[in-house]
Amino acid sequence: MPAIKDVYVAVIGAGGVGKAFLTQLEALSKRLTSPKISLIFVSRSKKVLYSPKYTALSYDNISTSLADSTQEPLALPQIIDFLAAAPAKVVLVDNTSSQDVADTYPGFLAKGISIVTPNKKAFSGSYTLWQSIFSAAASSGAKVYHESSVGAGLPVISTLKELVDTGDEVTKIEGVFSGTMSFLFNSFAPTEGSGGKWSAEVTKAKALGYTEPDPRDDLNGLDVARKLTILARLAGLPVESPTSFPVQSLIPKELENVASGDEFLQKLPEFDLQMEETKVAAEKEGKVVRFVGSIDVTKKEVKVGLEKFDRSHPIAALKGSDNIISFYTKRYGSNPLIIQGAGAGGDVTAMGVTGDLIKVLERLS
Amino acid sequence: MPAIKDVYVAVIGAGGVGKAFLTQLEALSKRLTSPKISLIFVSRSKKVLYSPKYTALSYDNISTSLADSTQEPLALPQIIDFLAAAPAKVVLVDNTSSQDVADTYPGFLAKGISIVTPNKKAFSGSYTLWQSIFSAAASSGAKVYHESSVGAGLPVISTLKELVDTGDEVTKIEGVFSGTMSFLFNSFAPTEGSGGKWSAEVTKAKALGYTEPDPRDDLNGLDVARKLTILARLAGLPVESPTSFPVQSLIPKELENVASGDEFLQKLPEFDLQMEETKVAAEKEGKVVRFVGSIDVTKKEVKVGLEKFDRSHPIAALKGSDNIISFYTKRYGSNPLIIQGAGAGGDVTAMGVTGDLIKVLERLS
Repeated sequence: MPAIKDVYVAVIGAGGVGKAFLTQLEALSKRLTSPKISLIFVSRSKKVLYSPKYTALSYDNISTSLADSTQEPLALPQIIDFLAAAPAKVVLVDNTSSQDVADTYPGFLAKGISIVTPNKKAFSGSYTLWQSIFSAAASSGAKVYHESSVGAGLPVISTLKELVDTGDEVTKIEGVFSGTMSFLFNSFAPTEGSGGKWSAEVTKAKALGYTEPDPRDDLNGLDVARKLTILARLAGLPVESPTSFPVQSLIPKELENVASGDEFLQKLPEFDLQMEETKVAAEKEGKVVRFVGSIDVTKKEVKVGLEKFDRSHPIAALKGSDNIISFYTKRYGSNPLIIQGAGAGGDVTAMGVTGDLIKVLERLS
Repeated sequence: MPAIKDVYVAVIGAGGVGKAFLTQLEALSKRLTSPKISLIFVSRSKKVLYSPKYTALSYDNISTSLADSTQEPLALPQIIDFLAAAPAKVVLVDNTSSQDVADTYPGFLAKGISIVTPNKKAFSGSYTLWQSIFSAAASSGAKVYHESSVGAGLPVISTLKELVDTGDEVTKIEGVFSGTMSFLFNSFAPTEGSGGKWSAEVTKAKALGYTEPDPRDDLNGLDVARKLTILARLAGLPVESPTSFPVQSLIPKELENVASGDEFLQKLPEFDLQMEETKVAAEKEGKVVRFVGSIDVTKKEVKVGLEKFDRSHPIAALKGSDNIISFYTKRYGSNPLIIQGAGAGGDVTAMGVTGDLIKVLERLS
């Protein structure tokens, strides 16, 4: 029998973030004396590893053990049943970006299973899903944290929540929310020097692993729109979905339907002139162009797209693939509260997840 | 009889931060349905307001009620006894900057009374006091939070703790930790234009309320040294005290012992040449001078004083009286995690305290 304070952890997803998280979880479980945390379930696509008797799994070679597992995969409702019947409190860590998993959060939460996750889909999908998630959590007392759904491990969501919870009035949120877009524009329109051609920068970013396999999945702006949806909702705006406000896509109309990312990259140079004109227009005003998201809470306006900034503006001065998020509030006045740093990557994303897990452990025990 | 989840709040200190906190506490207690929080004690210098039966105080005109109170003041040990005998969990909010109050934290914590505070003295005094505080808390299960002891409401301490707790390796912390110093140097050595004379900037800062009544209390660097002591300890360095590492004072030797702040300001112009030379030396390198604190965790070196920065460096580009704190870590690599914004002021300091109180409530209930 587990002690009353013990906590079981179940992990769905063991890719880049998932692997980094498992490493951090192992270290955390060794460091913590109370509560004792046991990994009792881990799954990845069609593979699953668990003991029907809830015995703790070993962290040694867990990726290999999972890959070699011959256990029958469980459907999501079965996972809920398995975890709900556990003889200890359970935290589900969803390290996927799956909409299917996100859609079952209310089911997990209703059964008292807490959730921590970097998965944006749950919190940026329909507003109905958002409401179901938080009302299920409120009813059962289960916790749900998702710091890494915006800005990876940067303390963006916790800061916004604290501003709101302590009674500050958030008037505007603005920033660069995509590491890919940050890298692209910091190279294409640097504050010093002239930068390369747009298509060349996109090709370079892909080669360096800064884009999705098909760069259009970054350039359509949807990733940024999802993050804005989450922040806007936390700031009190009942945004219906990430497509319910203006989002500028950087994919030329003519290339929206080409078959592959490679074909897209091949044809992109034909459209360099458009982006070059945008860059030059900004330069003529002494500015640089950046891909930003902004939420005007007072006017209830959310938008994503290209904007021009003075070269000395913090958004213009960003480096590498860093994110920057500025919170304008009543208390902070004319100078915003700013958070800046790497907003993508396995280790820092996992850090946000581990940090959330610690918060849940402190609140459960 | 209070319900098992109810929490009593006792407040020591009702000055600028204390008043702002009481306003935020009133709003919080109206918003929260569970736990129910009741203000049962408030004190200020020689005034105290409480009911021996722990009846909740009214927030209406509480400053006046406190000023008019004829209740006999309680000594700190009496306050401990009074709160320890309460029929509910108690959180002490220390909004003073008193060393005496700080010295009694272990006594409160040992009795299970949680503490939230912006008071730097407890965490930057002797290392023995630091150890007593956290071991008393660990033994009793009481919580202790002090976000506002560095950077006011900016999420500095929570971020550093999370980096450490999730297993990141913090290699260096650097920043501008004093709103007064930030304002002085942003005016004296701006990135554009030439700024005023040093003594004129100090006089102006005092007139605008940016300095302590005696500006030497800012210029001696001790306030920054205290904040560095706190961060260094959280990063794992057992720093003995804020005077156990190099701290550059900006008070000319000859003016250390003049009788008053006014006399100091009167004589300061005689020493403008020194600061002017420092500024010009930086300008010759294309840089600006700033008053910063840094902790090299790897080398175990802490220091506070003047440093030169490129004009494009985030520390140079700071505005107004903002603070900026950069965390260099293994996970974040060459680009640090940066937090920036107002690091002083009643409302934002109280916000950090209220945020901490919310954390304690979530962990107690």
